[in-house]
Amino acid sequence: MDIEPTAQEKARFFASSWGRVKALPGKLKALVISIAKSIKKLGQDDPRRLIHSLKVGLALTLVSLLYYARPLYDGFGVCGMWAVLTVVVVFEFTVGGTLSKCLNRGFATFLAGALGIAADYFARLFGKKGEPIVLGILVFLLAAAATFSRFFPRIKARYDYGILIFILTFSLVAVSGYRVDELVVLAHQRLSTIIMGGATCMLISIFICPVWAGEDLHIAVASNLEKLATYLEGFGGGYFQSCGDDGSAVVSKDGKSFLEGYKSILNSKNIEESLANFARWEPGHGRFRLRHPWKHYLKIGALARQCAYQIEAINGCIDSDIQASEEFKSKIEGSCKRMSTESGKALKALATAIKTMTDPSTANFGHVENSKVAMNDLKFALNAASLQNADFLAIVTAATVASILVEIVKSVEKISEAVHELSQAHFNKIVEPTVSPEKPQQLLHRGIIQPVSDADGKANVFITIHEVSTDSPDKEKPHHQVPKPGKRMEM
Amino acid sequence: MDIEPTAQEKARFFASSWGRVKALPGKLKALVISIAKSIKKLGQDDPRRLIHSLKVGLALTLVSLLYYARPLYDGFGVCGMWAVLTVVVVFEFTVGGTLSKCLNRGFATFLAGALGIAADYFARLFGKKGEPIVLGILVFLLAAAATFSRFFPRIKARYDYGILIFILTFSLVAVSGYRVDELVVLAHQRLSTIIMGGATCMLISIFICPVWAGEDLHIAVASNLEKLATYLEGFGGGYFQSCGDDGSAVVSKDGKSFLEGYKSILNSKNIEESLANFARWEPGHGRFRLRHPWKHYLKIGALARQCAYQIEAINGCIDSDIQASEEFKSKIEGSCKRMSTESGKALKALATAIKTMTDPSTANFGHVENSKVAMNDLKFALNAASLQNADFLAIVTAATVASILVEIVKSVEKISEAVHELSQAHFNKIVEPTVSPEKPQQLLHRGIIQPVSDADGKANVFITIHEVSTDSPDKEKPHHQVPKPGKRMEM
Repeated sequence: MDIEPTAQEKARFFASSWGRVKALPGKLKALVISIAKSIKKLGQDDPRRLIHSLKVGLALTLVSLLYYARPLYDGFGVCGMWAVLTVVVVFEFTVGGTLSKCLNRGFATFLAGALGIAADYFARLFGKKGEPIVLGILVFLLAAAATFSRFFPRIKARYDYGILIFILTFSLVAVSGYRVDELVVLAHQRLSTIIMGGATCMLISIFICPVWAGEDLHIAVASNLEKLATYLEGFGGGYFQSCGDDGSAVVSKDGKSFLEGYKSILNSKNIEESLANFARWEPGHGRFRLRHPWKHYLKIGALARQCAYQIEAINGCIDSDIQASEEFKSKIEGSCKRMSTESGKALKALATAIKTMTDPSTANFGHVENSKVAMNDLKFALNAASLQNADFLAIVTAATVASILVEIVKSVEKISEAVHELSQAHFNKIVEPTVSPEKPQQLLHRGIIQPVSDADGKANVFITIHEVSTDSPDKEKPHHQVPKPGKRMEM
Repeated sequence: MDIEPTAQEKARFFASSWGRVKALPGKLKALVISIAKSIKKLGQDDPRRLIHSLKVGLALTLVSLLYYARPLYDGFGVCGMWAVLTVVVVFEFTVGGTLSKCLNRGFATFLAGALGIAADYFARLFGKKGEPIVLGILVFLLAAAATFSRFFPRIKARYDYGILIFILTFSLVAVSGYRVDELVVLAHQRLSTIIMGGATCMLISIFICPVWAGEDLHIAVASNLEKLATYLEGFGGGYFQSCGDDGSAVVSKDGKSFLEGYKSILNSKNIEESLANFARWEPGHGRFRLRHPWKHYLKIGALARQCAYQIEAINGCIDSDIQASEEFKSKIEGSCKRMSTESGKALKALATAIKTMTDPSTANFGHVENSKVAMNDLKFALNAASLQNADFLAIVTAATVASILVEIVKSVEKISEAVHELSQAHFNKIVEPTVSPEKPQQLLHRGIIQPVSDADGKANVFITIHEVSTDSPDKEKPHHQVPKPGKRMEM
């Protein structure tokens, strides 16, 4: 295909180019303004982002100046570079992320350094000619095996970075060509600089405006429940009210925002899982102890997503072009409204219970029961509906909405159960002590040390404590086996 | 809380410990077997993982031995380490991932190196005392600003790694304390070793069993449509058949697998987005050209998720404890079965069209139309249903399923439109040339060069080619403005 632009086309091209050049300053200004606006918005959405950036700057400046002021640690030499490198790659937004990377990096460097020295020593046995071949084979095998292990989902989630550093350090140490005694010095220097960089990150991350992944997860799950609640509480009014005006099931524009809030839940899985992964690395903080049952949050999150899918389906039905029968809608209006409102209230109570870490029973059960009563009312209403002269097609749309609402009520019940499990696993142990603090002397403790393997395969020693209150009616009732922060021993 | 284990408890503890030690060899064997099995399964699920691991091993061995055989490149000195480091951190599973990291690393190192030298030069102007302060301030500001920029979703998706390397290199160069002429040598060495490591990765990644992110995305989207199709094709049979046996809407156990296939779609968003991000970095390969419209795949993926949400809602209704009325179900059976089967067939045809990159119109439109006809049939069936003596509650469940099916038919239509857009944007340009290859001489070409800014803000020159076929009835009809692979110029 030959292209021979004519003179006219050339002129047009240059004219348009010149127009573009002339418009450049204006465009540049608009660009700068839009960038400034988005920076402001990003900072306002979550001010912790700004703080995090300053924290990284601080950590890096500290370590860099230490590296710069070389006389201070002349022993480290060029290895000081590793401290800078560590800070840059290790500092994450959450404390859990930073800790996980620091610990991964530290242990991997140590392990790989030792293995690398061993490999070097081993390869030397094969003489000058055999050494590079043996080293090459060792590096190949270890790198391939370690890379493959990164495909295991569990390893990927927790130790991905550690394996990367393991491969890196092993190759560097094994093929460095230094003598073993030199290597030991080098490895020691590198490890100490990495520890220095890592410690700087950890300290700044933990003690200056910490962002705890666990707390983020806690808040995210609660706010997801709130988003569902907002939708459900608004739904009844929106769906049944507007149909009085124009007959179609369009929700007013003011209500659009509550219709959209739940959509962020649909794709919340990855965020929740990574937060839970980071939270496992965090020490006890605030209201959370070291082994807070983070898995329960994932379960609640999954159920919330389930509920969001159903809401998505309801939205599809509302947007349907088949107009629902007004007569029929008015028949089911009462029970449907109550179902959605009570479910919404139940979710709100559950969200509050999670946020305040209190027992959800009292606040919540009433609403769940109410919504179930409303569900039965709906069944009666449906059974009683006389349909002789109604347009059945118009009924089906409304009936579908009601039917999905029934499913939502059921999943709210499941969420309620999951929150209760979470609360059983932890909350009430902290917030509502079964024994009033005034009479600690009246308690007799008998402890049983019991080694228990948790799901991660790590052995923990759990201590079951029988609190025998002398004036309590439920004597000798053993408490749930929750590892107590102060008494847990990790092996 | 004092814990004083009694002698009995001690004995019990040691007994159980001894039991554990005795059981160790058996447990170890079981563990090894289970690990071996999961390794085998991981390899079988996707043999490319094994190949990838071997590729990483190969790249690392090559670069390591180059580093080991120092005399070969004595100029590099200790900088050869950076080649090893680059290979380890840059080699990703997909070609796009590797290229994106290589290019990010290369450009970031170059830019940050230059800026670092400039900063060093600038700081020296402030004398021996002022230098560390100025350098500290510069490092702090740059690190904080760069870290903050990583929070922008668009930057995060594409340049996250580059920014990390930018911060790293800048700090290292700025505070290295070397003189500027030394620094230039160092920077040159480092850049050349990084380029060496990066080139090794890129070459091995592209030429030895390449895994293209673009192709993966292409296949993933098509297979997601197939999963939906499998569900829909099986659904009619499962739902309506089983109710003949025991009255409840339980699908037979053999059918459980097709019921579960779609669930993986629910959380497919992140995978698809990261694949699309990597695909943008890939050169043209196989059937894909450099700027294949990857965004269209994301759109199809989003619609497929929408459809999966509706299927999730249908599943909820099927599992409901309210038994559907047999009489009513038999009335809607025909149209519902046809709706789901035809939608399934339409999706299968669309998936095939994507896979083979052919025009989906002929294969697909028939099925979409058929499913819409069935949808209308359902409306008639619903209208005609006489409900005088029926249990309305039992009808509602089946009606809900039918009603959600209607929504599914609609979203399948949307998917079909999106696939058509994709096909318009690319496929048919490759597979079905509008001009038969026998008569190329009869064509006259007139080209217009037209600079167009795409969404990324990059300027491309698109060339619109009017193919004037002397014997074609539609003379002067301009083609779609697709950048032709051979003729595109990037500025």
